[in-house]
Amino acid sequence: MMSQSLKGWIIDLDGTVYRGKQVIDGAAETIAYLKLIGMKLVFLSNRGNISRKMCHDKLLDMGLDLSEEEILLSSTVTARYLQKREPGCSVWVLGDKGLADELQVAGLALARTPEKADWLVITLHETVTYRDLNQAFRAVRHGAKIIATNADKTFPGDDGDCIDVAGMIGAIVSSTGQEVEIVIGKPSAIMAEAALDVLGLPPEECVMVGDSLESDIALGRNAGIRTALVLSGSTEREQLEAFDFSIDYVWDSLADARMLF
Amino acid sequence: MMSQSLKGWIIDLDGTVYRGKQVIDGAAETIAYLKLIGMKLVFLSNRGNISRKMCHDKLLDMGLDLSEEEILLSSTVTARYLQKREPGCSVWVLGDKGLADELQVAGLALARTPEKADWLVITLHETVTYRDLNQAFRAVRHGAKIIATNADKTFPGDDGDCIDVAGMIGAIVSSTGQEVEIVIGKPSAIMAEAALDVLGLPPEECVMVGDSLESDIALGRNAGIRTALVLSGSTEREQLEAFDFSIDYVWDSLADARMLF
Repeated sequence: MMSQSLKGWIIDLDGTVYRGKQVIDGAAETIAYLKLIGMKLVFLSNRGNISRKMCHDKLLDMGLDLSEEEILLSSTVTARYLQKREPGCSVWVLGDKGLADELQVAGLALARTPEKADWLVITLHETVTYRDLNQAFRAVRHGAKIIATNADKTFPGDDGDCIDVAGMIGAIVSSTGQEVEIVIGKPSAIMAEAALDVLGLPPEECVMVGDSLESDIALGRNAGIRTALVLSGSTEREQLEAFDFSIDYVWDSLADARMLF
Repeated sequence: MMSQSLKGWIIDLDGTVYRGKQVIDGAAETIAYLKLIGMKLVFLSNRGNISRKMCHDKLLDMGLDLSEEEILLSSTVTARYLQKREPGCSVWVLGDKGLADELQVAGLALARTPEKADWLVITLHETVTYRDLNQAFRAVRHGAKIIATNADKTFPGDDGDCIDVAGMIGAIVSSTGQEVEIVIGKPSAIMAEAALDVLGLPPEECVMVGDSLESDIALGRNAGIRTALVLSGSTEREQLEAFDFSIDYVWDSLADARMLF
């Protein structure tokens, strides 16, 4: 059985564990079961506009008691990346407050003015104003390099799809003519490595479970990690026909993970 | 003398006639002189976020009494373009109120919801919010085509350069994956034709005067209109060395236009 060599689970959150404010049927029980049988788990999300603490509290409100250490958001990984590669740099944020929190938790300094920033860090900004865009624009015009937590185009909001980080990035890139240096979020190797680091396992002993072909499944393929697509989120079964590489498992939801055992 | 065949003047506003809230030295007198000797004038600006009425009033506050008919903004030309090419279409605006005013003056209907719009019209939006960006995003996701009054990247604000229309366009294009169908502003042929229409003259009897190589001088070259660069705005004399086509006249400011006579 393939599951014999399986020790680590990298699990997406939005569309895989919960949808909106609701835990997906069977997800909580499956997570508990995987832990019970000794699997190592890490939850890997492209959300970059919240901190791990905010995510932890949100999950707790939904009845899911994960530890902060089990949660890796693109904000977390972005903060760690900058802290490791650019220690002492100062950052300016175009994005919601959660990202600034996460950057500060990692020990990074927020620039006092846009003009003084070494890096502009972009994520979703759900209350963005012209002033915010203009400050980010000025940071780049004064030499800040651009890093983005992720580059998702849309996310499912309560009243339909909403403009996501790609919109914030597009505003700054198009007006400054400067490209993004690094996009941290899935499917990047940076996110895969961060997850494997937390698990302390080699890729071939892990599986990436998620609802997105472009981020979750692509990350698994790129990193040599087994892939499991769940149809509880943004992907419909019909889309698989046009998909050009194989997926190890296709499940209706995370609950089907138990079929492996 | 070249000026013998010269009957029409197409004159840029920002950086040519005024800078900030100040009329440029000698501009008012030169305009009066050109009118006195029988020249036809039209003032052609890439500003798309104000209406002609707003522009007229602003010029009046500065002591310049031009008629609304002499003023052509990219908002005016965008409104006329849609009214002529897409009569009966409904529009959604991502931009300041002046554009919506100008579209309505031209008889265009504003869509009640983003989802019902045939066209998304983008211009500078100096009070843009996430909600505005999201509504524009939804208009395009529901089938609206994109037209932009202009595509300028920056404009000079009171406290430095500011993010301009290119930022608004970039936000929507990057998040929807849909390109802009038409950019109306200078140096487009659409703006040149609109100006020549107002003057009622062929291109060879006109001169385009402006401070921008990319918009004013390029428009003149593309349309077969003589060009006069003024150094009272965004262009420095040093930049001319790297410029790859000839300019008919280079003046310190509009006041030098009198040297032609």
